Amino acid sequence: MEHTDETVSLISAGKVQGTPVYNTQGESLGEVEDVMIDKRSGKIAYAVMSFGGFLGLGNDYHPLPWNTLKYDIRQDGYIVGLTKQQLEAAPRFSRDDNPAWGNRAFEQSIHDYYRAPPYWAAS
Amino acid sequence: MEHTDETVSLISAGKVQGTPVYNTQGESLGEVEDVMIDKRSGKIAYAVMSFGGFLGLGNDYHPLPWNTLKYDIRQDGYIVGLTKQQLEAAPRFSRDDNPAWGNRAFEQSIHDYYRAPPYWAAS
Repeated sequence: MEHTDETVSLISAGKVQGTPVYNTQGESLGEVEDVMIDKRSGKIAYAVMSFGGFLGLGNDYHPLPWNTLKYDIRQDGYIVGLTKQQLEAAPRFSRDDNPAWGNRAFEQSIHDYYRAPPYWAAS
Repeated sequence: MEHTDETVSLISAGKVQGTPVYNTQGESLGEVEDVMIDKRSGKIAYAVMSFGGFLGLGNDYHPLPWNTLKYDIRQDGYIVGLTKQQLEAAPRFSRDDNPAWGNRAFEQSIHDYYRAPPYWAAS
């Protein structure tokens, strides 16, 4: 469905997965591995960004609140306002971890770090 | 991330993709090929269900309003209230089609068929 996966208003999850993520300095931070859907509201809660890996063997994932990502047509990727140093200190989990999705304190810490309104508070 | 892709409240798009879809009679209708995200609101608008295919070679897709799908733990799949006969007449597109995503008349016809409130009207 290469030609049917994006329009002005809609985009497929399949197209989001694998999209590169840059910071505002144009540095590559990683790529979107997957997105987490809030089952109650049907809203995307997080993009899970992988980085540092090779051929899918990366072992660090960063959950980014969905509303912190902005798509940039020119770079064909998402932009987040985050330096590499800030990313180093950002919430992360390894592929062997079991992140505490659904734990409000864990999730609040993510939103606090990015100063982004939590998905469960948004209208 | 096999063990980290679903919690009480969140599920990854990667886990939704490939999940079977049944009707209330327990008949298999297909599986979720992808989900379409409304970029403006960050909400899932549609599940795109494939069926009739073999090894990914299926050539028919049905867009199902996301709020018509109900997950059933016992069957480990989604349930829609749709007979096979009703599905035959449902909005569909082939893999060679370019569905008119973003065209309100096209999208309204989908929601009308399923009697489901459109994603752009929901809060």
